Amino acid sequence: MPYTAPIADILFTLNHVAGLEAARRDGLFGDLGDDLVAAIAEEAGKFANGVIAPLNRVGDTHGTPFKDGVVTMPPGWKEAYRDWAAAGWNGLAAPTEWGGQGLPYALNAALIEIWSGASMAFGLGPLLTMSATELIAEHASPQLQATYLPKLVSGEWMGTMHLTEPQAGSDVGALRTKAVRADDGTYRLTGEKIFITFGEHDLTDNIIHVVLARLPDAPPGTKGLSVFIVPKVLVKPDGSLGERNDVRAQSIEHKLGIHASPTCTMVFGDKGGAVGYLVGEENNGIACMFTMMNRARLAIGLEGVAIGETATQHALAYARERRQGHAVGQPGHDAAPIVEHPDVKRMLLCMRALTNAARAICYSTAMAIDKARVARDAAARQAANARAALLTPVAKAFSTEVGSEVASLGIQVHGGMGFIEETGVAQFYRDARVAQIYEGTNGIQAIDLVTRKLPMAGGEALAAFLAELRRTVAAVCGSNDPAFGAAGVRLDEAAGSLERASAWLAAKLRDQPTMALAGATPYLRLFALASGGCMLAEEALAARRLGNGASAGAAGRVALARFFAETLAVEAPALERAIVDGAESVAAADAVLAA
Amino acid sequence: MPYTAPIADILFTLNHVAGLEAARRDGLFGDLGDDLVAAIAEEAGKFANGVIAPLNRVGDTHGTPFKDGVVTMPPGWKEAYRDWAAAGWNGLAAPTEWGGQGLPYALNAALIEIWSGASMAFGLGPLLTMSATELIAEHASPQLQATYLPKLVSGEWMGTMHLTEPQAGSDVGALRTKAVRADDGTYRLTGEKIFITFGEHDLTDNIIHVVLARLPDAPPGTKGLSVFIVPKVLVKPDGSLGERNDVRAQSIEHKLGIHASPTCTMVFGDKGGAVGYLVGEENNGIACMFTMMNRARLAIGLEGVAIGETATQHALAYARERRQGHAVGQPGHDAAPIVEHPDVKRMLLCMRALTNAARAICYSTAMAIDKARVARDAAARQAANARAALLTPVAKAFSTEVGSEVASLGIQVHGGMGFIEETGVAQFYRDARVAQIYEGTNGIQAIDLVTRKLPMAGGEALAAFLAELRRTVAAVCGSNDPAFGAAGVRLDEAAGSLERASAWLAAKLRDQPTMALAGATPYLRLFALASGGCMLAEEALAARRLGNGASAGAAGRVALARFFAETLAVEAPALERAIVDGAESVAAADAVLAA
Repeated sequence: MPYTAPIADILFTLNHVAGLEAARRDGLFGDLGDDLVAAIAEEAGKFANGVIAPLNRVGDTHGTPFKDGVVTMPPGWKEAYRDWAAAGWNGLAAPTEWGGQGLPYALNAALIEIWSGASMAFGLGPLLTMSATELIAEHASPQLQATYLPKLVSGEWMGTMHLTEPQAGSDVGALRTKAVRADDGTYRLTGEKIFITFGEHDLTDNIIHVVLARLPDAPPGTKGLSVFIVPKVLVKPDGSLGERNDVRAQSIEHKLGIHASPTCTMVFGDKGGAVGYLVGEENNGIACMFTMMNRARLAIGLEGVAIGETATQHALAYARERRQGHAVGQPGHDAAPIVEHPDVKRMLLCMRALTNAARAICYSTAMAIDKARVARDAAARQAANARAALLTPVAKAFSTEVGSEVASLGIQVHGGMGFIEETGVAQFYRDARVAQIYEGTNGIQAIDLVTRKLPMAGGEALAAFLAELRRTVAAVCGSNDPAFGAAGVRLDEAAGSLERASAWLAAKLRDQPTMALAGATPYLRLFALASGGCMLAEEALAARRLGNGASAGAAGRVALARFFAETLAVEAPALERAIVDGAESVAAADAVLAA
Repeated sequence: MPYTAPIADILFTLNHVAGLEAARRDGLFGDLGDDLVAAIAEEAGKFANGVIAPLNRVGDTHGTPFKDGVVTMPPGWKEAYRDWAAAGWNGLAAPTEWGGQGLPYALNAALIEIWSGASMAFGLGPLLTMSATELIAEHASPQLQATYLPKLVSGEWMGTMHLTEPQAGSDVGALRTKAVRADDGTYRLTGEKIFITFGEHDLTDNIIHVVLARLPDAPPGTKGLSVFIVPKVLVKPDGSLGERNDVRAQSIEHKLGIHASPTCTMVFGDKGGAVGYLVGEENNGIACMFTMMNRARLAIGLEGVAIGETATQHALAYARERRQGHAVGQPGHDAAPIVEHPDVKRMLLCMRALTNAARAICYSTAMAIDKARVARDAAARQAANARAALLTPVAKAFSTEVGSEVASLGIQVHGGMGFIEETGVAQFYRDARVAQIYEGTNGIQAIDLVTRKLPMAGGEALAAFLAELRRTVAAVCGSNDPAFGAAGVRLDEAAGSLERASAWLAAKLRDQPTMALAGATPYLRLFALASGGCMLAEEALAARRLGNGASAGAAGRVALARFFAETLAVEAPALERAIVDGAESVAAADAVLAA
């Protein structure tokens, strides 16, 4: 069965949990109407279902053959990309002055989920183009912007991000690619980059590499990094394409998943140096990177949501078709669809609950990114910016964990068929795995959450968020709706665990930072379970307010929120213990890991 | 880096947690000495490290090409298998009357871990041969035994198990392969089997298929199944090979992992019917299967332990080599080996703790299987049999989950390199996944635990096991060793959760079985965390008693037990809640899964 973009669910979460509807009503997005948002999502869904999804397995099986520096994309991919870009999808949230449509980033986030749900490898190229576009739009000179942005926004050219080198992975400050000043104000780059996604391909005539490099006289570490635009093909003053630049793909990786996304080793300066154009100021590269990092990380989180969604759809469809065994307590003696067996039902509910919770967290993060730009007053913009910063690592790490967990459950629902590649669900499991690694490993996200985001503004951003969770808990308890079961109590406990663990970590950060670091990963999970549980409850409360219409489905949303609270959020006290007690047990265990 | 069989750890768990040493001292295994056990394990380790492990990636990349009904094993595999069988490894635990060595099954379990740790696909073929051998040795006629057992025990022939059909997976009773009585007392089989591991290959001259089929006048369901020996090549009265039987491989599957294990669709009776020889009595097939099911399921659990072990070894080696970032609180400014970063340390400890706990559970199960046969009196044999029955689903399901979890953590420790196939750790992740599915999915194991094992003998088997856990908890608390941290308290809580959840499930089983079934999977995990935690604590207590010598490593074992209790077993109360509260939330969530 194919992927079907879950438009109704997407719009519901976008409008009623992330708050797009309220923001529109407040006039934060001009005259953007509900009907236009829905129409855009519907159209994106049609394109994803009809054009992209059928290419997903083709991409997986064909991969991207590499020969003599040339990467050939799988059959049908070039045409699909061309049509996708021609429909304007690439520039949905891009600035209008460069040909974009300036629509909310939250809407674009929903669309990133949709493209990735249809094919994670397909969605990944544009996702990097968007990152490169954002960076250039925020930091490059007007001349560079005029040269590159129109074609990056239209998708006529694609963009890449070049950070990693063999010795510089999580520690980006260790990179050594060299940039030397040339007489004409440009730079010459030499060095090697690895793991460069879509570093080379034949989808577009030109590829705009955004490259982190180091000037000869730069200070060590991250403070000595500069950002350069290094086009694959040099652009003449009239905008037409000139000669090939001195940068080439040396090889591509043979990977566990996302086979249709070429991961390249890139070599700069074989012939003396690749021409690079400085973005922003020298040695200010890491700051430029940071401005786009929230969006890029969130986008990877959305890949996790996307895989979760498609894996859930496939598993549910299979479980409704496949008959095996008699269901206890059901009449008759025929074999039942396996969806009726409680253990299978539990797996499917778990898949749906995790996916929807991750979606709610991601869309809320996206909305905060929007509000940081468009909210009415500076205080609101600042609060939104802090909210985005706080939620981004959670959105990235939790959602990508969810992607893998849900893909694994999807295999399990399929039984033996799940292990057979032709079924297609094993691909989700393989594809999903990388999202926990790239754009900052999930461990790095957890450390970012604990060491940078938790103490942000004296803990104010966190406190404001916790207060919101408390309001949700109170609303669930106050609803007196028996359909919520023990959800209110469980979410209350989860919020309590999160508060206590936060306070403990904040204290440890000051005097015993290694103890705080040992708890970073369980803390991020705790944060996500408490937040995700409350957001699903918010969704359920909204559905109850709106009535049990087709688009709201209050009964289902209340049941899902309850399931999450009673079977998943219950892990919160355990995580609190793992953080608080576990820190010492990690410190005490050197003998276990000694050679 | 290659796999290195962890002989010291294996022997320690075997002797001091599973209880092989005490059983030997009790004379249950004749004059089997400690030195012989150790020597056998050492030799097995050498063979696994030196011969099998180097073939693991070869097997993954070459796979097993299929052409005109012939499967060609990967380069080097035939020679390795020949040498392995020639060294007598196949018959280690097989009856001496058929050429086996009659050694403890627990020792063979350790060796199954070792073969699978070197290469899961390599270990899998012999594992099925052993299952077929056991079944024939217990149920077949003396004549069939004399014909088949000597060559199955020596490994000159390999065996297979044929259960699954397209419509009969978890529901084996739905199978339709037909067996018709022939005039000469043999049978003719027609039908199709799928997912037949090592159904066809070129490692041996003959393959002995053990096939579940149904007689024309058999009752429906599992009560109408019979077991047949169907050799690939018919055996002449003098024992030499005759004509090909009417059974063939029609195709092989393209799978997520274990690429060197050919998974075949087998067709019986193209030319009128494959010759089959009845094992045991007609319509008694499922009982024959049950006698070997504990061992086969345990063997799959051992695959999980094996993958956990090799993934942990690879990750730890990488984490000691790879330098990235400065470790907080460490002197100097150089990049530290990532093993020094607390978040990486936590991942590695988690890998080690889960792997060792799964090993302890599996070996304890194996020892119970031995004691069910060799214990001095009938009561002890019966108790051991009940213990084996109780622990088997936990050993199978928990250990295979651990295999996948640990393999995933291993990828994460490797960062981007983990996603590259050449690194080798992605293969562990792919290979491990199937073990949660075959030989009874983990959901089926959980249902078996709750519906059959929990109420066994009026709950006596469970009660006896819980009492042992309580004794361990008391010993940890009584040790007054501060190095245990809060382990005693946490294990006490875990045991309490297990007791309460068990009682709740037992009650529900009687009046609301669907409620019990909904909690089966979390219950199995709870059972495993409480048991695994206590067994690691037993291991630590034993190491303390034995002193901190090289083989005991008391400090490390105490630290590991503490880590498990304080960061993993703490999940127990959450699982109790998921079982008790979650049951209703699963039942209430039909609206979520409605089409």
